[in-house]
Amino acid sequence: MKIRLARNSGFCFGVKRAIQMAMDQADVHSDIVTLGPIIHNPQMVKKLEENNIISVDSIDEINGRPTIIRSHGIPLQIKEELKKRNVSVIDATCPYVAKLQQLAKKLHNEGYRVVVLGNKNHPEVIAVNSYIKGNTITVDSAEQYPEKHYPKIGIVSQTTQTIGVLQKLSEKALVYSSEIRVMNTICNATSIRQSSTAKLAEISDLMIVIGGKNSSNTKKLAAICQKITETCHIETSEELDLNLISSKSNIGITAGASTPDWIIINVYNKITEHFGLSLKPAERVDDIPGYKEECNGR
Amino acid sequence: MKIRLARNSGFCFGVKRAIQMAMDQADVHSDIVTLGPIIHNPQMVKKLEENNIISVDSIDEINGRPTIIRSHGIPLQIKEELKKRNVSVIDATCPYVAKLQQLAKKLHNEGYRVVVLGNKNHPEVIAVNSYIKGNTITVDSAEQYPEKHYPKIGIVSQTTQTIGVLQKLSEKALVYSSEIRVMNTICNATSIRQSSTAKLAEISDLMIVIGGKNSSNTKKLAAICQKITETCHIETSEELDLNLISSKSNIGITAGASTPDWIIINVYNKITEHFGLSLKPAERVDDIPGYKEECNGR
Repeated sequence: MKIRLARNSGFCFGVKRAIQMAMDQADVHSDIVTLGPIIHNPQMVKKLEENNIISVDSIDEINGRPTIIRSHGIPLQIKEELKKRNVSVIDATCPYVAKLQQLAKKLHNEGYRVVVLGNKNHPEVIAVNSYIKGNTITVDSAEQYPEKHYPKIGIVSQTTQTIGVLQKLSEKALVYSSEIRVMNTICNATSIRQSSTAKLAEISDLMIVIGGKNSSNTKKLAAICQKITETCHIETSEELDLNLISSKSNIGITAGASTPDWIIINVYNKITEHFGLSLKPAERVDDIPGYKEECNGR
Repeated sequence: MKIRLARNSGFCFGVKRAIQMAMDQADVHSDIVTLGPIIHNPQMVKKLEENNIISVDSIDEINGRPTIIRSHGIPLQIKEELKKRNVSVIDATCPYVAKLQQLAKKLHNEGYRVVVLGNKNHPEVIAVNSYIKGNTITVDSAEQYPEKHYPKIGIVSQTTQTIGVLQKLSEKALVYSSEIRVMNTICNATSIRQSSTAKLAEISDLMIVIGGKNSSNTKKLAAICQKITETCHIETSEELDLNLISSKSNIGITAGASTPDWIIINVYNKITEHFGLSLKPAERVDDIPGYKEECNGR
């Protein structure tokens, strides 16, 4: 049995940065909040709680505590309300997400009808939409795009979308418009992670995708793998069904951008220990075959 | 045997306008030139010659005569040279081509690397390129597009291209750029003519495509038909091989944007007369079944 970790998996630049900013604050303040979970990983959120970094759902629960804006960003109105209430804000919005927000606003100001490719219920998309007062066409596939003429269409994408869907959407919009302007706001780290996952899936008879069940990019990794080989999506090693594995000879592991390393390591160690493989337990992700730290993220 | 003319065929708005402008000038001046053939139809060019409207190839041949700029446009440098020489110019550049030239220039001025989708040897494309000093990437398919990163790509299209090729090109450019801005400069009349031709081809066992062998849009019509059914491309009724037709039961006729009505009528009448069909000869294109004047062009 061979086990390999996708070359690019786990924390992306934006998540690493947000977690680091939160931990730095925890060194200075005894009680901090994040407005909404800082990343879409329940285990990491729990770990932050142990460091007195608590996730709250509304600004009324802040009660004067320093507040971290999570990596997905927050709606403009809430940002403005925080300012009005003089809340001390640490903005951990991923710089690529912040850029997406600014590009959407710019397109809107230049007279484009803005199309956002993404899940309309995802906090990143909700935040982007707020910058143009919700006046966007939000679709998560080309099929959803309205067959209607708009003279100038400006397209942006949730950072975790796949390039193929953005291409299909642009293709369709072009038929109905005199001009389309497409900002490729898909995060490189996302597409690199996706292609490295797909490559591994092609040589695996089981893919284990690790990450929050509420994590958009992890769910996309699972969808990519499912098209290629047998796949299971788990949040932690506890969820791993070892019966699934016993008959397999090539196991691939990948993880979403919000999946901490220790969870990946736990999954790997659980398999090697159970099957008594002649592999020493991993202590770092780069102990796991396939993984190369220098290629992770950008 | 049934014969039908594609609902949208023959002269487009830009060609009609250019011919009308030339004929109006012939009423006022006894000797006029066009710089290059006014449209890509040798028979029409000959007819204009009979009205003392002569096509010349270079500005040195103008000799002080009023000069018509043809529907495809001319390079900026030549336009400037005409001005310097105080030539009396009648600009019959198709307004959609003129718009394409302006949009290419605008994209260039706004910092985009301009991509022109079109045939680099076609006068329309040569003229467009001149507006940005030839500093464009000119391709006639997505395959020709360089696999190289450019931060901002601006795409325009020769007015007679097909939307499918423009879509494929945009799709490819998006992979290599942070931003693509696509100006859909394809002329509506072209795509309407193409789709009406394709519809007719689907119910025909022979398509006769009429138009200049040097006409880009006529050649595209022939290519579209060839994918669907047996097709012959002719310039005039003289070229029509009646042997081809005898075994057919559904004949479709279509014609390029630069094909004059009288040539279409001649082809139709040649067939009906030869086969002694119980159809009276056409005097106008709207005598031919399938054709509806109100849908022609825009």
